Amino acid sequence: MARIVVALGGNALGNTPAEQKKKAAHAAEALVGLIRQGNEIVVAHGNGPQVGMIHLGLNHAADSGVIASEMPFPECGAMSQGYIGYHLQNALLRRLRAEGLPQAVCTVVTQVEVDPADPAFENPTKPVGAFYSEEEAAARMAAGDGVFREDAGRGWRKVVPSPLPADIVEKESVLSLLRDGFVVIACGGGGIPVVKRGEGDYEGVSAVIDKDYASECLAEVCDADFLYILTAVDRVCVGFNTPGQRELKEMTDAEAERYIAEGQFAPGSMLPKVKAAVRFARSGPGRRAVICSLDKASLALTGESGTVVTA
Amino acid sequence: MARIVVALGGNALGNTPAEQKKKAAHAAEALVGLIRQGNEIVVAHGNGPQVGMIHLGLNHAADSGVIASEMPFPECGAMSQGYIGYHLQNALLRRLRAEGLPQAVCTVVTQVEVDPADPAFENPTKPVGAFYSEEEAAARMAAGDGVFREDAGRGWRKVVPSPLPADIVEKESVLSLLRDGFVVIACGGGGIPVVKRGEGDYEGVSAVIDKDYASECLAEVCDADFLYILTAVDRVCVGFNTPGQRELKEMTDAEAERYIAEGQFAPGSMLPKVKAAVRFARSGPGRRAVICSLDKASLALTGESGTVVTA
Repeated sequence: MARIVVALGGNALGNTPAEQKKKAAHAAEALVGLIRQGNEIVVAHGNGPQVGMIHLGLNHAADSGVIASEMPFPECGAMSQGYIGYHLQNALLRRLRAEGLPQAVCTVVTQVEVDPADPAFENPTKPVGAFYSEEEAAARMAAGDGVFREDAGRGWRKVVPSPLPADIVEKESVLSLLRDGFVVIACGGGGIPVVKRGEGDYEGVSAVIDKDYASECLAEVCDADFLYILTAVDRVCVGFNTPGQRELKEMTDAEAERYIAEGQFAPGSMLPKVKAAVRFARSGPGRRAVICSLDKASLALTGESGTVVTA
Repeated sequence: MARIVVALGGNALGNTPAEQKKKAAHAAEALVGLIRQGNEIVVAHGNGPQVGMIHLGLNHAADSGVIASEMPFPECGAMSQGYIGYHLQNALLRRLRAEGLPQAVCTVVTQVEVDPADPAFENPTKPVGAFYSEEEAAARMAAGDGVFREDAGRGWRKVVPSPLPADIVEKESVLSLLRDGFVVIACGGGGIPVVKRGEGDYEGVSAVIDKDYASECLAEVCDADFLYILTAVDRVCVGFNTPGQRELKEMTDAEAERYIAEGQFAPGSMLPKVKAAVRFARSGPGRRAVICSLDKASLALTGESGTVVTA
């Protein structure tokens, strides 16, 4: 039996509540497949489309005077954890019982600590929320509402820092539930980003923690055997979308570094996955990361699908 | 040492994120007071203002075409659990460590089962969300968007059923965390209302479960010694706001029934609290309920404040 932290993409969960319910049911099939194999699993997930929708919707309502206040980013992230956690735990429980499996499922609202000295705070890069005109963006920046950048010709958007995770504040909750045999959902959207001011004293910050790095941090904290990073393709490729495209069944950390240096992996897509995988493989003896598709996740333990990253 | 389920009102948490942070810190002081006395606590809380804001804001954004879909009520409730749970767990942890106490805190996203045959489904009474004109309400009803009623001269609002809680779907999570010494936050907003379709197969329904009844159900499930229902006054009164007003230090279930028959308690305010208290006191030997104010909660165990309800 292995302990596996699975990082599920927010895009794999769709854009509306109805879509999310369907896609959560689909994800539950694959995740319960791993449990049926005898593994303990912790599910971490992204929240890009969901937190975007919540942030955009509530802040539009606040601007229209329909609700009393804008909603800061950490609070929107917390909402997305409840929203996605509900659908995932509901779908996982249904699927577990349908297969005669006894596990209970728990979603842990999770804060993730980041370092206030992380260089990401000097250089916000992650676009979030609504598109504004250059004038609106300038007015918002002048009013102290953070940094705005032009986004690929589509308009101006707020950009927030994307610092690395330093610790999982609710790690004891996750570990306690795992010890008691639960399927745990944690670190939704990379976690609610907080900085530590003192012992037990955490404060939310406007930032987005990459969910692959947060899942990697969670996997270390849980002393997991495997980190599974789910993606849209069955295996990591080199020469992606070229005539020389080649699927990788396995990759050492050194090979991964070389491919990264060659620019084989797209930033914001495969690159953070490979980097998080390497980080986990290097974090302790016997630890391995797998990058694979949701549908073929249960084939990864036997090498029939997925790319295994080792150190 | 006693095990106490504490029901905190959603109104005690304010209307904006900034207010909620302050009020959560204030609530944490009182709640940690109970822990300092050596008690185990589970915190349940309301979400009236919060879920109203989320539902109103997101559905306004959907109507304006800013986001892709309206957000159903169970999903808004799930969001409010993440939002409130984050602030409460953050405030509790800070306060615990400030007092040198070692407990960890965990928010459990909680579904609460209701009976689809509950008569409440035949008679929706709980107003939620935006105010509409009579014409808009009629159009929405014709489009299948539930039942709308005129609300106290302020306009038409959607009304949803308020069924009784039948079971806590995530009870094993709460019990496991309690056994391991955690401070648990659960059943936010009365829980995400679901009906059972089969083994492990729950489906969200558009309803609001009264948080006092949900807390009572949670207290039974946790085999709590006490159910504390926090309110704005220090003690339950008879003859409230009359010259003969009298504070009650204790009340048996039979006395409570008589006062209820006399119409001593306001529906939607003190009445559900007293009813939930009686229900818990009757649910098992030695079980007692306390109705008290947040600030004087730690005085209730010694009878210096609050109204104790016994069977």
